[in-house]
This record gives sequence, structure tokens and C-alpha cells, in this order.
Amino acid sequence: MSTLIGVDWGTSSLRAARLDAAGEVLEERSLPRGILTVPAGGFPAVFDEACGDWMREPGALALLCGMAGSRQGWVEAPYAGCPAGFADVAAQLTWIEPGRIALVPGLTCHEHGVPDVMRGEETQVFGALELLGLQSALLVLPGTHSKWVRVIDGGIDRFATFMTGECYGLLRQHSILARMMPAGDGELDAAAFVQGVHHARRSGTLLHAAFSARTLALFERLAPAAVPSYLSGLVIGEELRVQDLRGTLSVAVIGAQALTCRYELALATLGVTVTRVGSQATWRGLRAIASTLQGTS
Amino acid sequence: MSTLIGVDWGTSSLRAARLDAAGEVLEERSLPRGILTVPAGGFPAVFDEACGDWMREPGALALLCGMAGSRQGWVEAPYAGCPAGFADVAAQLTWIEPGRIALVPGLTCHEHGVPDVMRGEETQVFGALELLGLQSALLVLPGTHSKWVRVIDGGIDRFATFMTGECYGLLRQHSILARMMPAGDGELDAAAFVQGVHHARRSGTLLHAAFSARTLALFERLAPAAVPSYLSGLVIGEELRVQDLRGTLSVAVIGAQALTCRYELALATLGVTVTRVGSQATWRGLRAIASTLQGTS
Repeated sequence: MSTLIGVDWGTSSLRAARLDAAGEVLEERSLPRGILTVPAGGFPAVFDEACGDWMREPGALALLCGMAGSRQGWVEAPYAGCPAGFADVAAQLTWIEPGRIALVPGLTCHEHGVPDVMRGEETQVFGALELLGLQSALLVLPGTHSKWVRVIDGGIDRFATFMTGECYGLLRQHSILARMMPAGDGELDAAAFVQGVHHARRSGTLLHAAFSARTLALFERLAPAAVPSYLSGLVIGEELRVQDLRGTLSVAVIGAQALTCRYELALATLGVTVTRVGSQATWRGLRAIASTLQGTS
Repeated sequence: MSTLIGVDWGTSSLRAARLDAAGEVLEERSLPRGILTVPAGGFPAVFDEACGDWMREPGALALLCGMAGSRQGWVEAPYAGCPAGFADVAAQLTWIEPGRIALVPGLTCHEHGVPDVMRGEETQVFGALELLGLQSALLVLPGTHSKWVRVIDGGIDRFATFMTGECYGLLRQHSILARMMPAGDGELDAAAFVQGVHHARRSGTLLHAAFSARTLALFERLAPAAVPSYLSGLVIGEELRVQDLRGTLSVAVIGAQALTCRYELALATLGVTVTRVGSQATWRGLRAIASTLQGTS
């Protein structure tokens, strides 16, 4: 099997890796060239800047996941519908250069007739399942837009998006609460964080719970330095409040350590343990997709 | 009974009115001098600018409600605790100049040990009860921070704050959703608004429901011009989702027409009618408090 170039091309950054046959990283690069920074028609040049040298190897194959396949991306790669197994995703690549450069499709699912979407997370989920040796699982991909993903028998059955990270940022930077917090977030105050998780779960809606950050500070029951941690607990607790965790003992959390450890703290309050998976899930997922292409295309 | 000067001094503006014995407005003024615009020690001068001529009348009495009594205001007026009847509020004025200028206390209540607060709304509620001839009611004061107030036997039993207007503004102006909306809100699209109300009620949390504004627009099921109305329906629907409206046939909504009509639309989806009360509620409430002072102070 020849060299695989994996590219995770998101809204605000581009990560690329040269992978061996097992999906291990030989070399990795990161560029601040998310799709929002790329002018119309500029995608081939940015791709060449990121991976041009790697692509000169004979038989090199590049698989791209993430927002590069969105309407604002390089080429629009249609969404695959849920439930979607690994084979469904692997079979629906959109080829930019046949046999050389392809986009992984995003996924869509419906709830109450309203669509939800993901791009890139499907690849991380399939990679994580392989890394963990699981066929059924509940996975969380925390971030600006957190995804909760239910996998049954190796396929993504359904998922839901939560604007958790974005709402934290809005409240942290632009709301009335911003005025009562120090400029920097500082280290996580675990006690304040857990207090926020509990309050959000009792409160019924973040619209109400968030106001408690103001009143607790007003009555000097929460130090200004602890408010960012409390607010983080509120938004993550709000996300947890609506999850159906009956019978769930463990959740796989995919992401950077700074965020996954917060989910671990929050889920511990519900007696649910966490298995952490890092960014290698993306590369493992892309390698698995590439392996379905042997001798084809 | 001599002239009463009523002042509703909020965060971003100051409204003042000269009132007759029945609480009717003889003259009204509005200044863009909310407490955030007033430097330390500057309150007497701004008050004089707003009401100095009226205060020169013999026996003139000024009653102030709102954020002028907050820690960042003229003088801090301690909160009265809930449940609080009209007499409790009227008896706990904080005098700035004895017999001449007084602040109405705000209210505080607790839920799950967490405090909530209001300043100014208590006066509007008591005024509205008088205007409507009610002793028990559920009232809503929509706005940046909406208040839902439960009145039993003439007293404010409990209330809760929702950061509804503020969260609308944050999502409207600063979130990823802002990019898919036209610059101005335009006229309310009632169908899109009601669609948002329904989706928020089904959705369980605004963190998830808000993402539907993005996906519905992405799949061209919602026109860009309709997204602001849909988003408004989402945030107001989220606020309604957690209200206990069992046995409630009618809710009193206090505020400006542009906002109260949205609550009327939203509550109609639940079979609840609305009685609208305008800004005269504040003046009526201040006049009722003043009437308890006759011959005292």
C-alpha cells in the first residue's frame, strides 16, 4: 500500500499528515489556512502548499475530510444519510482528481423533520471505533459545535449538534457576564465547574441558568476568577442534561485533552466514565477508508 | 397629594414622568443617561438635569426604581426577599434625601439555593396588578433579561430571569448564524417565528435547537430573510418550554408592543391568551407606593 496523505481541512485550520500502511503518522503539518481563508479558486494552491511535496511520490493518494467538502470548500461533497456504516462513507467519495485526491462525504440525519449535519467528525468516529475495537458506542466530539454520536453495529445511527463551545465564547466575551470575569480563563477551577454542571442540569434551560453566574458573583458566592470555570460547567452541563444516558456506563470522547478532561469531570457526576481518543482518530479513519480503495479507482 | 416624580432609571436609559394623584402622566421625558453612562458621584447632576425643574415644586417627591438602586447606581438599595407583597416593597424604600428622593428596593428570590434578582420589574408588576385589578397572576416582562413572575394573593411569590433578549442578540450578531442572515431584522415573519417556537419546545435545549437555523438555511428550507424571525421564535420558545403553564389560561405581558406581540404569538401556540400592559405600569406602581407615604417620612 502506498503513501496516504490525510488532510483534515476545517473552517479555521488545515492539518495534514503522511501516513504509513497502519495509519501511523510519519510526518504531520498544520497550517492556519482554514477554508474561510481560501479565496474562490484558491484551493489547489493551498493544497499544494500543504502537501505538494508529499503528492509527488508515485502513487500518492490524498483523502480529505472536513469543511473542504462543504459548499464554501474546494468541491461540494454531498452528505451521506444516516444510518451510515463505514462502507457507505467509504463508497461515496467525491474525487477531485481520479485516483489521487478525494473528499470524504459528510453525514446528515433528521430529527422531527429537521436536518443535522457533520463534516469530518464521521471520519474521526470510524477511526475511534477502530482504535477502541468497538461496534456500538456513544461518542462525543466536543468543540465549537459539539457532536453526540450514537453508533450501533458499526454504523452511525444518529447524531446531534450542540453549539456549546460557541455559546461559551459568546457569553464569555460579549454578554453581560463578560464584565464580571477576569480577562483570561486561567486554570480550570474544578469545584466551580462541577457546581455549574449541577446547576445547569437542575435549571431546565441555559437561558435561566446562565443568569446565576451573574447573581452568584453579585452576592459574592463565586469569585470572579471562578466564573469562567462555572460558566464552562453550565454550558457542558446543559449539553449533558438532554442526553439519554440510561444504561450508559462509558462514553468515548474524541478531542484535545483540555476539553476532554472537562467532559470527564462532567460525566463523572452522572457515574459515567470516559475513554479519551485524540487526534489520531482522524488519521486512523482516513487510512481505513483508503484501505477500501486498494486496486480500485 | 402633591406632585410625584417617577423615575425609571435603567442600565441604558432614564425615563422620568410627572404624575398626578391618580398616577396619570402629566409630562414625560427620556434621556440616554442609563447608569452605565454616569461617572462616580455624577448621579445628583444627571437627576437634576432630568427632573430639577419639577423638583422645585413645593412638596415634590421623587421615587426611583430600576438599576439606580444597584451597586453601580446612585445608592445601593438592599433587595427585599420573596415572597414580597406590595406593602413590603413600599416599606423598604432607601431615602437619598429624606422625604424628597427615595429608591424602591429590588427583589431577590432563591431556587435550589441560587439567588435571582430584579430591579424595577417589581414596580411594574405591582402597577400592572392594579391596572388589571388582579391579586393572583402569572406575568412576563420580556426583554434583554426576561422575568417570569408568579403573583399569589397580591404578593410576588417567586420569579425567574431568562437571558432571552441578550442571547438573541449574541446569536444574531456574533455567532456563525449571523453570516446567513441579512443585516436588518426586517418585519416579523410570523410563520418562521412560530416554526422556531415549536422547534425549541421539542428540542430540549437551545444549544441544539439553534443549530437548526443553520441547517434549515443550508438545505434551503428557510430563506435568509426569515432566519431572524425563526431565531427569535427559537429563543422565546426556549423560554416558554420550561414554564409551568398548567391551568394557566392567560398571562399578563408587560412591555413594548414589538415584543409583547411576539409573546402573544408564541403563547397562542399553547392555547394561552395574553393581556398586554404598557409602560404606564411603572408610573402606576410608583404612584401606589407614594400613596403609602402620605403624612409619613
